[in-house]
Amino acid sequence: MTSNELTTHIFEKGSYLCVGLDTDIHKVPSHIFNESSDPVFSFNKAIIDATKDLCVAYKINTAFYESAGLRGWESLQRTVEYIPSTHFKIADAKRGDIGNTSSQYAKAFFETYPFDAITVAPYMGRDSVAPFMQYPGKWVILLALTSNEGSHDFQLQPFANNEFLYEKVIMEAQTWDGPGGLMFVVGATRTEQIAHIRKLAPEHFFLVPGVGFQGGNLREISRQGLTTQGGLLVNVSRAIIYASSQKNFAEEARIIAQQYQIEMSEYLKEVKSN
Amino acid sequence: MTSNELTTHIFEKGSYLCVGLDTDIHKVPSHIFNESSDPVFSFNKAIIDATKDLCVAYKINTAFYESAGLRGWESLQRTVEYIPSTHFKIADAKRGDIGNTSSQYAKAFFETYPFDAITVAPYMGRDSVAPFMQYPGKWVILLALTSNEGSHDFQLQPFANNEFLYEKVIMEAQTWDGPGGLMFVVGATRTEQIAHIRKLAPEHFFLVPGVGFQGGNLREISRQGLTTQGGLLVNVSRAIIYASSQKNFAEEARIIAQQYQIEMSEYLKEVKSN
Repeated sequence: MTSNELTTHIFEKGSYLCVGLDTDIHKVPSHIFNESSDPVFSFNKAIIDATKDLCVAYKINTAFYESAGLRGWESLQRTVEYIPSTHFKIADAKRGDIGNTSSQYAKAFFETYPFDAITVAPYMGRDSVAPFMQYPGKWVILLALTSNEGSHDFQLQPFANNEFLYEKVIMEAQTWDGPGGLMFVVGATRTEQIAHIRKLAPEHFFLVPGVGFQGGNLREISRQGLTTQGGLLVNVSRAIIYASSQKNFAEEARIIAQQYQIEMSEYLKEVKSN
Repeated sequence: MTSNELTTHIFEKGSYLCVGLDTDIHKVPSHIFNESSDPVFSFNKAIIDATKDLCVAYKINTAFYESAGLRGWESLQRTVEYIPSTHFKIADAKRGDIGNTSSQYAKAFFETYPFDAITVAPYMGRDSVAPFMQYPGKWVILLALTSNEGSHDFQLQPFANNEFLYEKVIMEAQTWDGPGGLMFVVGATRTEQIAHIRKLAPEHFFLVPGVGFQGGNLREISRQGLTTQGGLLVNVSRAIIYASSQKNFAEEARIIAQQYQIEMSEYLKEVKSN
């Protein structure tokens, strides 16, 4: 998916919501197990059907599928193939290795499975990221500033020129690829930094996880991070997909997703009118 | 596997060789495709049979299996289950995410698949690594200084106190776990730094990739990195597994592995006699 296509979807739908399919089999409502031989896929399918007009992207957290072995990869494959082609499909896989190995990961997520984007860890530097950048229309979403406590251990440590590691990652990576193929992960618990990070990378999309369960503030994130091209994908996982553990889980998921979409459409109007 | 067991295997075998099963289906000798419905596993099985008395560990580079989708994960599962329990089994997977996601990766590699260790990227800090450390007898192998060109982008950049990022990772991570559950990845092309890194982490094992194809110097690495407990696992992948592309590939792999083992047994004797 191109940057222009993503921008068009965002403004047409009034939404930059990404629904995170971090589907834990232990949280799938019990009735689904009686109805399906692949309860994780059946759960995801119901969530996708209930939310697809309200969101522009889905993010599949691969760990939740890998932990189930082959059965999990089958559920992942069915899920990514079920997501409509109008939606931006993110493999939240946090990969990254030396060149010939990253090429194999790129093949896995961009050829074997039809994802549009993959999250990548920056620690090994440019040549570990480059193989993912060689696919036209596919995206790297590079970890910059994450929402967890451990972000203080390295990301928020200052380099010799008083620049934090995450700032160096953002500045360095912009010499690797333009805003049509590279996004950054910016945790939503870092609301106070989003305006600053937007200055560092004025044109790149940010994938913002941590809204909902982790307590990020959607209003602040949006006012500081939105651009005239959209510029944000805000991911919500647990608050939507586990809105209810009953038979009505998909309807409840839709209600929560719609609350986000309505709020997002207001912030998008502010951007348009500025 | 405990640290003492690993040390015992190393000195009994006179070897700290780890054979890297980075098995690319395009490099599997053609005759195997006529004989097996799972050529990657059949290739690995032949390599394991030919080398197991010469090495103490096998490292499976998950990317090479993931790129083939379900079929690849089947080959990975057969391979890890075929490796004898006397051998240290490394998932070279470079995972790492927020806590509840890293827990799922730990489940994948330590419960669903019977690995002893997994390589982990440090960028997200302590709470992204901790879930892997909660399994007794299992190991985290944390990326510290890698052998690729991109290591200069961040790992070899100086922090405010003139400490390189990779040094900070090594010092910080030693506050997270002891030498019985934590190793570091130290690239073999960094021979000049290994004596220095050994001073930073005198008791931890180092996993050293890059010997062989990438040109690391085994003598220098060993003299600077070996300890009385062993302290090194030196990984060789392509130089062994692709020693020949003919029917005799396993015999040729054994010949190369034996050259490494003979050289290693000499360096281990030097450690013993010091």
